[in-house]
Amino acid sequence: MPVSAIDQLITALGKLPSVGGRSARRMALHLVKQKQLRIPPLHQALARALEEVKTCSICGALDDTDPCRICSDDRRNHKIICVVEDVADVWAIERAQSFHGVYHVLGGTLSALDGRGPESLRLDSLTERLSAQQVTEVILALSATVAGQTTAHYIAERLASYSMHITRLAHGIPMGGELDYLDDGTLNAALQSRLPF
Amino acid sequence: MPVSAIDQLITALGKLPSVGGRSARRMALHLVKQKQLRIPPLHQALARALEEVKTCSICGALDDTDPCRICSDDRRNHKIICVVEDVADVWAIERAQSFHGVYHVLGGTLSALDGRGPESLRLDSLTERLSAQQVTEVILALSATVAGQTTAHYIAERLASYSMHITRLAHGIPMGGELDYLDDGTLNAALQSRLPF
Repeated sequence: MPVSAIDQLITALGKLPSVGGRSARRMALHLVKQKQLRIPPLHQALARALEEVKTCSICGALDDTDPCRICSDDRRNHKIICVVEDVADVWAIERAQSFHGVYHVLGGTLSALDGRGPESLRLDSLTERLSAQQVTEVILALSATVAGQTTAHYIAERLASYSMHITRLAHGIPMGGELDYLDDGTLNAALQSRLPF
Repeated sequence: MPVSAIDQLITALGKLPSVGGRSARRMALHLVKQKQLRIPPLHQALARALEEVKTCSICGALDDTDPCRICSDDRRNHKIICVVEDVADVWAIERAQSFHGVYHVLGGTLSALDGRGPESLRLDSLTERLSAQQVTEVILALSATVAGQTTAHYIAERLASYSMHITRLAHGIPMGGELDYLDDGTLNAALQSRLPF
């Protein structure tokens, strides 16, 4: 028996991250119930994304253009490069709207367990950028995980011969966070890095 | 500034049920990261659903064919009609694989608050089916909510002049359910409908 159009749609939707069988069925039903209204916008958005989205050859982020909007924006400070693991991190920092430099997406972290060595990260293109343009600061905005911090240390060592500042994000109490609920590691970091009031 | 392809995709995905901004961003990133591999299956499934899915003119369910696979299946018992609120209920009962009759999808419930009267439900086509074919039983498989039960009572009254059996689903303890966690209404119903062991 051939797969029905609805079952095919449910299967395709079920491949999206954190969408299980139940959610996929709800989504498919939502779409086909008013199909003329609801399917075309998603269908067109997918077609456009398939055609237009490309990886920026400078920073490694995803955008419609290459170089991406951030790398080709003259109003941004191209002397400060924020190094992140993933495109999602670029989006997160952009949403915070307080960083006006440019990015460099590594495409992951070092991980001996998963067999990801330095050659799997976009490190050569980072050093090329540092050699080519006058960069004054590299911010290592990597996750506060073992893999993230290992990667940060590796990059810091590799960039030691360059003359720019190498910085990292601050550790501390999240905004709105209560001390009582904070883990010991974060609380220690917040105490160590205490600042004049 | 025109909307980028990725933002357009995030917006379209965010319109799916129970998908918020964060999930939509995750989905969009998942899709565009390996776009040649991940976008075409969903894109094609949407195109096929848009073109092929139709409402069954007999039962009101959604399928590629009209009449739907269930209504056109001779191995099913067309003398037993299971009346449900929504297409999702047809899918739920089909998954349980124990019902071998046919369905009739009402398309909702009566609701004075939302201004949904009997004319908004597919009731005329139900009575037409009852007149045209020799139906021996109508199962009112409606939700155990106020709206569902009101609708069930309304339909039962309207079908009183026909000679078939009108049944409803049993209320009782869900399989795997513990008495201690059960609400009073369900426990009462289970006690009232107790059966010889």
